[in-house]
Amino acid sequence: MSDVFRFMLCPSSIVIVGASPDISKLNGRTLHFLQRDGYKGKLYAINPKYKDIAGIKCFPDIQSLPETVDLAIIVISHKFVAKAVLELGKKGVPIAVLYSSGYSEVGEEGVEREKALLKIAKKYNIRICGPNNLGFVNAFENVTATFSQYADQPPVAGPVAFASHSGAFGTGISALARKQGIGLGYFINTGNDSDITLIDTLEAIVDDPRISVICAYIEGLDDGAGFIRFAQKAIRAEKPFIVTKVGRKPSGIRAAASHTGALAGEDRVFSGVFRQYGVIRARNEEHMLDLVSAFICCKIPTGNNLGIITMSGGAGALMADRAEELGLEISNPTQYTRDKLAEVIPSFGSTANPIDITAQFLAEPKLFIEAIQITLRDPGIDCCIIWLQLMHQRADLIVNIFKQVKKNSGKPFIVCWLDAPEKSINELRNTGIYVIGATERAVDVIAGLVEYGQSLVRLKSEPQRGLFGFSRRTTSGVSKSISSMDSVSFLEGSGVSLVPTYLARNANDAKKIANELGYPVVIKIESPDITHKSEIGGVHLGLLNEDSVYDSATEILTSVKQLVPNAKIDGILVQKMIVDGIEFVLGIRRDPIFGPIVMFGLGGVFIEVFEYFSFAAAPITVVQAAFMLDSLKSKVLLKGVRGNLPVNEQYLKKMICNLSAFAVSNPEIVELDLNPLVANGDKIVAVDWLIIVD
Amino acid sequence: MSDVFRFMLCPSSIVIVGASPDISKLNGRTLHFLQRDGYKGKLYAINPKYKDIAGIKCFPDIQSLPETVDLAIIVISHKFVAKAVLELGKKGVPIAVLYSSGYSEVGEEGVEREKALLKIAKKYNIRICGPNNLGFVNAFENVTATFSQYADQPPVAGPVAFASHSGAFGTGISALARKQGIGLGYFINTGNDSDITLIDTLEAIVDDPRISVICAYIEGLDDGAGFIRFAQKAIRAEKPFIVTKVGRKPSGIRAAASHTGALAGEDRVFSGVFRQYGVIRARNEEHMLDLVSAFICCKIPTGNNLGIITMSGGAGALMADRAEELGLEISNPTQYTRDKLAEVIPSFGSTANPIDITAQFLAEPKLFIEAIQITLRDPGIDCCIIWLQLMHQRADLIVNIFKQVKKNSGKPFIVCWLDAPEKSINELRNTGIYVIGATERAVDVIAGLVEYGQSLVRLKSEPQRGLFGFSRRTTSGVSKSISSMDSVSFLEGSGVSLVPTYLARNANDAKKIANELGYPVVIKIESPDITHKSEIGGVHLGLLNEDSVYDSATEILTSVKQLVPNAKIDGILVQKMIVDGIEFVLGIRRDPIFGPIVMFGLGGVFIEVFEYFSFAAAPITVVQAAFMLDSLKSKVLLKGVRGNLPVNEQYLKKMICNLSAFAVSNPEIVELDLNPLVANGDKIVAVDWLIIVD
Repeated sequence: MSDVFRFMLCPSSIVIVGASPDISKLNGRTLHFLQRDGYKGKLYAINPKYKDIAGIKCFPDIQSLPETVDLAIIVISHKFVAKAVLELGKKGVPIAVLYSSGYSEVGEEGVEREKALLKIAKKYNIRICGPNNLGFVNAFENVTATFSQYADQPPVAGPVAFASHSGAFGTGISALARKQGIGLGYFINTGNDSDITLIDTLEAIVDDPRISVICAYIEGLDDGAGFIRFAQKAIRAEKPFIVTKVGRKPSGIRAAASHTGALAGEDRVFSGVFRQYGVIRARNEEHMLDLVSAFICCKIPTGNNLGIITMSGGAGALMADRAEELGLEISNPTQYTRDKLAEVIPSFGSTANPIDITAQFLAEPKLFIEAIQITLRDPGIDCCIIWLQLMHQRADLIVNIFKQVKKNSGKPFIVCWLDAPEKSINELRNTGIYVIGATERAVDVIAGLVEYGQSLVRLKSEPQRGLFGFSRRTTSGVSKSISSMDSVSFLEGSGVSLVPTYLARNANDAKKIANELGYPVVIKIESPDITHKSEIGGVHLGLLNEDSVYDSATEILTSVKQLVPNAKIDGILVQKMIVDGIEFVLGIRRDPIFGPIVMFGLGGVFIEVFEYFSFAAAPITVVQAAFMLDSLKSKVLLKGVRGNLPVNEQYLKKMICNLSAFAVSNPEIVELDLNPLVANGDKIVAVDWLIIVD
Repeated sequence: MSDVFRFMLCPSSIVIVGASPDISKLNGRTLHFLQRDGYKGKLYAINPKYKDIAGIKCFPDIQSLPETVDLAIIVISHKFVAKAVLELGKKGVPIAVLYSSGYSEVGEEGVEREKALLKIAKKYNIRICGPNNLGFVNAFENVTATFSQYADQPPVAGPVAFASHSGAFGTGISALARKQGIGLGYFINTGNDSDITLIDTLEAIVDDPRISVICAYIEGLDDGAGFIRFAQKAIRAEKPFIVTKVGRKPSGIRAAASHTGALAGEDRVFSGVFRQYGVIRARNEEHMLDLVSAFICCKIPTGNNLGIITMSGGAGALMADRAEELGLEISNPTQYTRDKLAEVIPSFGSTANPIDITAQFLAEPKLFIEAIQITLRDPGIDCCIIWLQLMHQRADLIVNIFKQVKKNSGKPFIVCWLDAPEKSINELRNTGIYVIGATERAVDVIAGLVEYGQSLVRLKSEPQRGLFGFSRRTTSGVSKSISSMDSVSFLEGSGVSLVPTYLARNANDAKKIANELGYPVVIKIESPDITHKSEIGGVHLGLLNEDSVYDSATEILTSVKQLVPNAKIDGILVQKMIVDGIEFVLGIRRDPIFGPIVMFGLGGVFIEVFEYFSFAAAPITVVQAAFMLDSLKSKVLLKGVRGNLPVNEQYLKKMICNLSAFAVSNPEIVELDLNPLVANGDKIVAVDWLIIVD
């Protein structure tokens, strides 16, 4: 942990600027919490109205402080904040947590105020966490430096670090965590992320050996490079990083933007980068906490075959449905396992997966533990859900069975127990066994464990990503498209194949070129002033002989002259027409958060409808390219449909990697589309392209 | 309620065949529960081992019963069931609930056993509920006729009827319902549905004035007509019908089939019929109970604009995301409302939807109630979610605020309160205010209310569906395809447009026809023995002149003769080629559960990949056809993409309705595909078709 974060998270002294003795008020709560929870460092208060607050000497102003302190917490109106920050800086205070609001979250005026404040902070060498936050808790060292309602009860330390952009939502999530027995070692709300960001704080914590699971609620990011760097650190430390991010849809993006002024970014890009770097995305706070609990308790599955052991065939079917939706396997156990199971399971049960042990175990508890152990021993089963309901009269017995299973098996399993007695849930949790009370959520959780296990395998061998490719250039505003022929030269060495394309100066010339290429051909207008050629009738497809090439070229030239009289015309492009193959799109986007992004997906007319793409931050490795293809919903098209050959995926992956490297070395690219990229067996070739640079 | 269901659900006397005094055993529990809960009717027990059980006279056999009874509950091994049923029938007992297992749920042998049993039951005029079930509860009349663990605590009556195919899962769901304060007036487990089905029992209950919400867990259906009839009754009674059905995926279908031998059916057809008839589908038991609680408490929204009032911008953004995913609107309030809101909400909040009132209301509770009431008064807001967290120290105040809101407003709202005090939740529930503790689930619930509201509007004016169209003919095994030209005659009067198609006897003839039609044309082989023409090179597209028609026709005839030497060749079909338009599919499937089903969706190469179709049971009305189109994920294609005109939806809906009527009057159709159906503006025409009849 770097010094500044040690000063913040484990301060040996704290000053509260604007402290109050009224513990019902925002400015009174923090001091109260710190004292109540036995904070061991020195405490100072600043407020001209008081001489003393709760036994702490209160100074009238910052200058009067007898010495510098590690951490300042500022709880005053934004009107006085700039002056306070200046004085704290002068006093040598290295960092201030800023509760005050009235900054970028309130629009233009606030944005300016925030900028001005940061300027002062920088000048006087003081870091800012906030503004517009409600502080943080380091429960290990009893630093309850917050006014959050979460601290209305003393925090309980545990292996989880949670950071949130939102104070109110973060408080709710933390409270739910406590209710579910999840100990938060750290809870940090960074508000507007003006200087120190949420990711910075997590980065400071990631190597804390007391922390094993990290989660965050985020509304947007400014620093995509920092995010990826942190995700890589978390993977290397084998600490799962679970994120709930809003802004999946325009409505959420709008709402998030109006909340903390966050840049929610393009959600598909986020999802792509999350998957690329093994970040587990939780849909909502409930899903997040389900995952956190499971990650605390469970080993990580090494494969994706889920064994479902159930006392209800119905619940088994529901879990099987959900597992398949989430890409889990539900293969049957080996014949050996099934024979063994058949010895203990009643005939009206099932030894196929889901394994239905029926309610018979009420009468014969032994069959329950045996069925579980036999299943977990099966070499093909990677993880298990054990489903049951009620059994209140046998609850202690069942708890003991699970304890025994946990002791005897190294494989991850979770218990889905509908209407379990509270006492049993707690007992199991204390033994490190995860219990959940909702059938589909059990599967969602297992799927999260499996996804993380697969990410570990994929990413462990990945080299650490450099910081190249993160030129977060904002578009200069003067971006322009490159003509098709210039694009051909531009793309030389990019490693992508373009269909051979020739420029004819006139209709006669086009005819000659077409005759050399052979038919059918395609001709297109070529002009630096015309980006969307087909919309003005500038493209003719499927020309079968020299007459139609001549006629079409003449027609195109005439009509373009009428429709875009001022366009500079370079001539007519002639290409051999590619008839067979499936249309994909391969491209680059410059993302304001993550820099150059590679995208690959389904092309053709449905591109506008379905938007089935994979996104990844450039540059990518071949392993990541393979993962991009695997993540595609339209992956089946790569296998060859309607008479097309299966696409040579090796070639395709290579091409995607090459283009991603090209994107990094050509940061002037704003947008690049190879659309369509037609693939048929080994032939993977772009027949049209558009490049915009600035 | 018909007699037989009155005998079952409100019996004036019950005999338990195989009763036992051991209340820890399956055969001892039912008698114990009935006595404990104060069942008012007469009780008899049959068991040769006892003279008396818990004060009830026990008879050695059924013949010895002094009189007939309304209901028999059979708790003996399947070995003795047939005899018992025969004797009960002879004794005049109208109905038996059959707990015993060993029937169709255990495979072939059990299926035969079940058939034999039903034969006896029919002969002796006794109805069977079960086998393989765990009974039912009528909590209004204290008929706890079950051995389910749910009855370990006395059932509490309430406005909900719940029926389940699964006993164990049904028990779990019922227990969760009780835990959440949901009173189940009826809980019925029908097991194998061998005679009386789950739907039959719900139909018996639907008009019970004490019931306002109906829910079911189903694993499959045999009688689609009965299901639709019941769904229509439920809609007319304005009682929401909420169903969780497994078998969404092959894994779940397999699991369900091995459980109760249920026919899970094609899930997409189920979903289509559910939507068509206003059945709300719940993904899982948690979603089901969330919906049930909300339907008990809330009025039904009349539109889909959701107002989100939140004290956390983050939670607001998450809800906005989810709402948009579920098709809800989150429009801003009127300017008048926003001005009013601005008077009460702090400047760092938001008067746009989601409305962020911030945590400021901790200091000023008045702002909370005012913000809610102002929002609910907005004419554009149809329903509301109010989001908050913790507030334990102000909980009573908040409860009172919600009570006041409920009193003053007629609009539906639900409260999403993270980590609410248990006491407040109960208090609100008792006032008829629904509180939920998870952010996304709050939106899921509101979406269910909105969907139901829209179904009511759509279906209220629908005529009651007749029983036509339910010829559940099973394929005779000798189904055959009709040749293309015969199909043209067959489809006459069906109301669908086919592209004009002519049969040429030879290549010369084809040339002549093509010249008359004008170019480009398409030619296809026509043979009753060749269903998939293009797979054997029997289709040539885009022929531009008579020479290529002649050559192509010759080539087709030659190659077909080589590839399918024994095929009877009728000739060559000639069609004008349709160049512009978007490809759809319109078709009929004969579903084993629901009879003829109309399907409509996206066509072309991606049909195999995406399977974006709407399904509905034939016949359908124009309103239902409109709803089918609205439900399509690819709906945007109807608006015209890539230079195609917007499709004339009036024409299209008419065509779908016509075809659905045609399906009903031609029950011999096993499958009918108009694929592609090319649509461009007013031109909607099938260019290829396949019909299979038996």
